[in-house]
Amino acid sequence: MGERERALLEGIRSRAKRSAALRVAIGDDAAVLALRSGEQVVVTTDFSLEDVHFRRAWHPPEAVGHKCLARGLSDIAAMGARPVAAFLSLAVPKELTRAPKGKPIWPAGKGQPSWIDRFYAGLLALADSCQVPLAGGDLAESPGGAEARAAADIVVVGSIAPRRALLRSGARAGNLLYVTGSLGGAAAELRALTQFPDSFRNVTTFSTDHPHFFPQPRLAVGRALVARRLATAAIDISDGLSVDLEHLCQESGLRAEVDAAQLPLHATATIEDALHGGDDYELLFTAPAGTHMPRTLAGVPVHRIGRMLRRHTTQPQMVLLHDGLRGPLLSAGWEHF
Amino acid sequence: MGERERALLEGIRSRAKRSAALRVAIGDDAAVLALRSGEQVVVTTDFSLEDVHFRRAWHPPEAVGHKCLARGLSDIAAMGARPVAAFLSLAVPKELTRAPKGKPIWPAGKGQPSWIDRFYAGLLALADSCQVPLAGGDLAESPGGAEARAAADIVVVGSIAPRRALLRSGARAGNLLYVTGSLGGAAAELRALTQFPDSFRNVTTFSTDHPHFFPQPRLAVGRALVARRLATAAIDISDGLSVDLEHLCQESGLRAEVDAAQLPLHATATIEDALHGGDDYELLFTAPAGTHMPRTLAGVPVHRIGRMLRRHTTQPQMVLLHDGLRGPLLSAGWEHF
Repeated sequence: MGERERALLEGIRSRAKRSAALRVAIGDDAAVLALRSGEQVVVTTDFSLEDVHFRRAWHPPEAVGHKCLARGLSDIAAMGARPVAAFLSLAVPKELTRAPKGKPIWPAGKGQPSWIDRFYAGLLALADSCQVPLAGGDLAESPGGAEARAAADIVVVGSIAPRRALLRSGARAGNLLYVTGSLGGAAAELRALTQFPDSFRNVTTFSTDHPHFFPQPRLAVGRALVARRLATAAIDISDGLSVDLEHLCQESGLRAEVDAAQLPLHATATIEDALHGGDDYELLFTAPAGTHMPRTLAGVPVHRIGRMLRRHTTQPQMVLLHDGLRGPLLSAGWEHF
Repeated sequence: MGERERALLEGIRSRAKRSAALRVAIGDDAAVLALRSGEQVVVTTDFSLEDVHFRRAWHPPEAVGHKCLARGLSDIAAMGARPVAAFLSLAVPKELTRAPKGKPIWPAGKGQPSWIDRFYAGLLALADSCQVPLAGGDLAESPGGAEARAAADIVVVGSIAPRRALLRSGARAGNLLYVTGSLGGAAAELRALTQFPDSFRNVTTFSTDHPHFFPQPRLAVGRALVARRLATAAIDISDGLSVDLEHLCQESGLRAEVDAAQLPLHATATIEDALHGGDDYELLFTAPAGTHMPRTLAGVPVHRIGRMLRRHTTQPQMVLLHDGLRGPLLSAGWEHF
């Protein structure tokens, strides 16, 4: 291990919070976690790649770190699980470990913080607020010289009681379709970012005013859905409502009908943003028609936006009701390839 | 999800084996694993980066896939744990998802297999032989056009009974130091590879004759050490004996003495290869001097190579006995930065 890597790891180790569940953390071959008796393990991994998921010129490093962890926590929320620990594999170009003027600053506070220091600050702030310890990971230098790009893989391990996880496959014909919070705000903010990137340089701390930079994983909502047995299926809206609803339809073997008038649009969003924008990290879930659904869960508004129906050979998998018309809703969000 | 990503995921899904512990696998927001009653969760993550850990021109994709998983399994082995499931986050340049002549071939067998197809073949062959299901992960296109590089992050989740994990910090003064298998073979083969890369093009299937391309994680040895309560501490030799022994010394607060004459050199290796070569993926462990240590564990030879001593201000952290001389042993293996 080089001096630089050792200093980085010591810095992370000293800043990462411990928890009762974390029996062995950073500094061994692997971490050891103790779950509550009888609970099962929930695991998710998500890549955050420079120039795919974020741009160094556009996104403050704090926001990159926040969203990196938020993506993993959102998957845990969609299962209705409790997060236990996070692991980060991070590859960064060497220059991102140095202060902007070339002076290495980790772990002490000399000069300006480096990109990686600010990335960890954003990630650990969210970890702290969600009480999820950073329990390990990997750290490497990205290859490629001046062309090198940062790549972060976040792993979140959670736990849940047996047979209680909210799956994509649990929806039944006749179930109503719900969504949390509001839709399209992240897409609208991304549009503004592409037009006026300089206006967003100082978006470095969490604020609900910045849904693209600082999405909030709906952990408390997911756990409330499980605890109160309110939902039959759930998925998080990371790729866009149309894409993620299609996943729900496919895994449940159903079709869906969405009422555009019921979509909870973010104040800045269009219907297109809400349907196809992606990055909202709200929960999309289903419940039997007879369920008394509260108007808020864990303080977050819940809106009914449609229903699930039996598949039909002459009907499209997803239908949008809009201005009194019925039309096929095509999935048109984020494409990984 | 694009057609290409869907086809890739379906291909992986159809080829990934299931297991009783795997309750929810590829196709949901997260995987759900059931451990044996009362067991704790062990988690490790390891990056395999193109041009850092492997080169496309040198390493057959099957070997890259094998070693990617072997690195994670080796960490689980070093804890003495049982692997339960693996997760792979993979970013690849678009061209690696296509057949060499540009025709997409996954999932069917038309034309030549793509790089990614051969990568998965190597990874899944090891997963099958170790009975570890590939339970999820992430898949993305690497950015950078012609400069794009592949990056794989392997996550292995294992389980172990409470307080039985073999930690780096468990060694005690007076413990003897042991190593499994032989050392330096991977470094010697890497040297041959740099000199005659064309000779290794067909090294596409597992063989113990190719320690650099197809290292064997010592899972059965690790579990035997735990089951028979033979070891006080363990680490896998991934960065080189000198580097990993230094970790063991630091975490245990001890110093170590290694006898060069006792090192089990691979037939092709020099002492330098054995001390600093890295990539051997053997286990380095400690045991009380009074322990009756078998000569083999799970069929793998075990050699005593030195001992652990109390720290001393005038003594180096590691000492090498060689040809009747005592000299400081400096860590000089793999540096991540």
